[in-house]
Amino acid sequence: MNALAFLQSKRDGDAHDEASLRAFVHGVAHGEVPDYQVAAWLMAVCWHGLNEAETAVLTQAMADSGDHQDLSGLQHTIDKHSTGGVGDKTTLVLAPLLAEHGATVAKMSGRGLGHTGGTIDKLESYPGYRAELSDEAFMRQAREVGVVVTGQSKDFAPADGVLYALRDATATVREPSLIASSVMSKKLAGGARTLVLDVKVGRGAFMRTLDEARALGRMMRAIGDRAGREVRVVLSDMSQPLGRTIGNALEVREALDALDGGGPADLRELVLTLASAGLSAAGLNGERAALARSLDDGRARARFERWVTAQGGDPSHPDALALAPGEAVVEAPNDGQVAVLDALAVGRAVKLLGGGRTHKAQDIDRGVGVELHAKVGDAVARDAPLATLRHRDGRGLEEARRLVQGAFEIATHASPPPLVLEAPT
Amino acid sequence: MNALAFLQSKRDGDAHDEASLRAFVHGVAHGEVPDYQVAAWLMAVCWHGLNEAETAVLTQAMADSGDHQDLSGLQHTIDKHSTGGVGDKTTLVLAPLLAEHGATVAKMSGRGLGHTGGTIDKLESYPGYRAELSDEAFMRQAREVGVVVTGQSKDFAPADGVLYALRDATATVREPSLIASSVMSKKLAGGARTLVLDVKVGRGAFMRTLDEARALGRMMRAIGDRAGREVRVVLSDMSQPLGRTIGNALEVREALDALDGGGPADLRELVLTLASAGLSAAGLNGERAALARSLDDGRARARFERWVTAQGGDPSHPDALALAPGEAVVEAPNDGQVAVLDALAVGRAVKLLGGGRTHKAQDIDRGVGVELHAKVGDAVARDAPLATLRHRDGRGLEEARRLVQGAFEIATHASPPPLVLEAPT
Repeated sequence: MNALAFLQSKRDGDAHDEASLRAFVHGVAHGEVPDYQVAAWLMAVCWHGLNEAETAVLTQAMADSGDHQDLSGLQHTIDKHSTGGVGDKTTLVLAPLLAEHGATVAKMSGRGLGHTGGTIDKLESYPGYRAELSDEAFMRQAREVGVVVTGQSKDFAPADGVLYALRDATATVREPSLIASSVMSKKLAGGARTLVLDVKVGRGAFMRTLDEARALGRMMRAIGDRAGREVRVVLSDMSQPLGRTIGNALEVREALDALDGGGPADLRELVLTLASAGLSAAGLNGERAALARSLDDGRARARFERWVTAQGGDPSHPDALALAPGEAVVEAPNDGQVAVLDALAVGRAVKLLGGGRTHKAQDIDRGVGVELHAKVGDAVARDAPLATLRHRDGRGLEEARRLVQGAFEIATHASPPPLVLEAPT
Repeated sequence: MNALAFLQSKRDGDAHDEASLRAFVHGVAHGEVPDYQVAAWLMAVCWHGLNEAETAVLTQAMADSGDHQDLSGLQHTIDKHSTGGVGDKTTLVLAPLLAEHGATVAKMSGRGLGHTGGTIDKLESYPGYRAELSDEAFMRQAREVGVVVTGQSKDFAPADGVLYALRDATATVREPSLIASSVMSKKLAGGARTLVLDVKVGRGAFMRTLDEARALGRMMRAIGDRAGREVRVVLSDMSQPLGRTIGNALEVREALDALDGGGPADLRELVLTLASAGLSAAGLNGERAALARSLDDGRARARFERWVTAQGGDPSHPDALALAPGEAVVEAPNDGQVAVLDALAVGRAVKLLGGGRTHKAQDIDRGVGVELHAKVGDAVARDAPLATLRHRDGRGLEEARRLVQGAFEIATHASPPPLVLEAPT
């Protein structure tokens, strides 16, 4: 391919045709286009953007640059993706709930570089949980249990990996068409027929405004349409953390509460919204009342236990969901209502305590984290506990405590923000 | 330096402050900023541009990244730069003329990758011409003869070298602020107090329109002002080649004609315009009539001989200005007037004949080239010779002939374009 002519056309604001865009992605995946040309192209895309057709072709070409997961033998496959937030443990509740209502959730989940680990890290709070399965075992569990979640053992969209690393190093991460194609390339390769996308909005999220989030959602849906997938987009608030716990074992405990029909209202609300959207899109019954019943009567919880057990996890192991022994409490500086609870600051605190990764090979501490005793809109009295930090031998504690303290703003009056900002009707 | 923050600010359209721009250029020159970050920055500059202050800082920082030539011991130093054209042999005439009128032309001249070689290649048509001199010999000749032109033995603006190579590979060559700073960084390092810039406009030039050329000229002048140099800008036509010869020895022969008071009118006109602008800017007498007299009475020619001889060239050597033996004539397809004579096509033809370089280490054939028998506005009869190609053993001849044939368009009526489009008054 002629990389210079390709670059020139985007510099001049022209649209790429399918053949040249595919050739470019192929060149990127095979190391045939030098980094500096890819980097210049990324900046030109920040400048002129990619139109809907270009974004769809880029996405498909990136998906085609690596392995595909073949889920065609399974019924009503649904995958959920969140653009990343703090305290987001919805997959743990959502997946068994979807399975209980006739869907199959068979997915691979990366170990991210987030504030806490990814879903897999959380599941590994159960000793014995196998993040790697053979293709055969993966498909068998999907058929028999309706839920299987492993680590990323296949090479999904390697071209996206190259682009992502360069975006990160060239200040071109935030371009919506690049975000949309990056997310969707891996989802297309993942093979599920229905995709529910939870786009987070707010201080703790990638998208800071509702307009940005809405535009991203539209783009991802358009990509899905062109690829023959059913895509549903939910926009949800991430100005404060989801639920009341952040940290791997803490979050699994909270997910169990939700699976028992309890847990924080926002978590339950988001799970029901995502489940309803996904099931309807997959042609199943997405009635919320029926879904709520499955949380309340223990059926979702039973499905969760079957899933974890099938995958080797031992819920009754004495180390399961073990928390770090250290506790430090952050107290309210005065009376009032919580006006701000900065999700990003809390996320950073958990990472400092050892609960997240800075680089890929890093181990994380599943027992540390933060429990929130008050969220936005809650009334607090001076010296009342706002949050408890779970730490191990004081690691990262001082800085984490400072962050959590600073994350809270107490005012005379404040009301809780709406959680679900937009959802399919 | 924080390259990511630097990139981000240009992506967002902000202006760089002096410190961060200097740190970036330092990092570029020392290989500390990876190519992909430089490339993304170049594209962001194409997007948002650089303001006058940024362009000046970039230029000075690039000049400061390498050697400086100290010409402060010389009187009335003048350097001339052309943005590149086809058949441009003005330096050979201009330099001795300026010296004859009290200025000093002491410059280093690169061997370009143009359609013909650079000034040094042309001078080497005289056997014995020394392109390398010690600093001492360089300065002595400057003082004694008023003219010395050597190859680029100092490392001028190496940061520009890095940027230029990446611009070339990332379709970011044409951004005016990058062109201006690239040209001026080397000129600032070259040390002359007065700079005369010949900005070419038209099909055979980098700047295709008068507006573009004017903007570039303004930018270079602003850079010079901030660096304490006297800069004068002349805009001249490059829709057709300058003069009637293209090729190294052919061009020296034509320069000698001009130094003898003859030669093509456009060459003489441009030389007088540039000389007048330069001498006035340097505080010397730039009266055109006096300059014309120096061409007509043999004094400029005598100064040229002193220069070439001082630098070891032998004007009476039997091989001096030797032409390649092959001749091929291109004839007019019909009666009419020459309406178009595409400078770029003619330049390419000369390169194909062996008269120019494709890569730096390449030898060039000084004897080949093209002589034009008709230029725009000239009347021609069918089958009359339009051009003669000087070739060696038919090398590149077929394609070169095709190019030269295609370069001419004959119409019923056409008038010659003005040569000097703008000049200082």
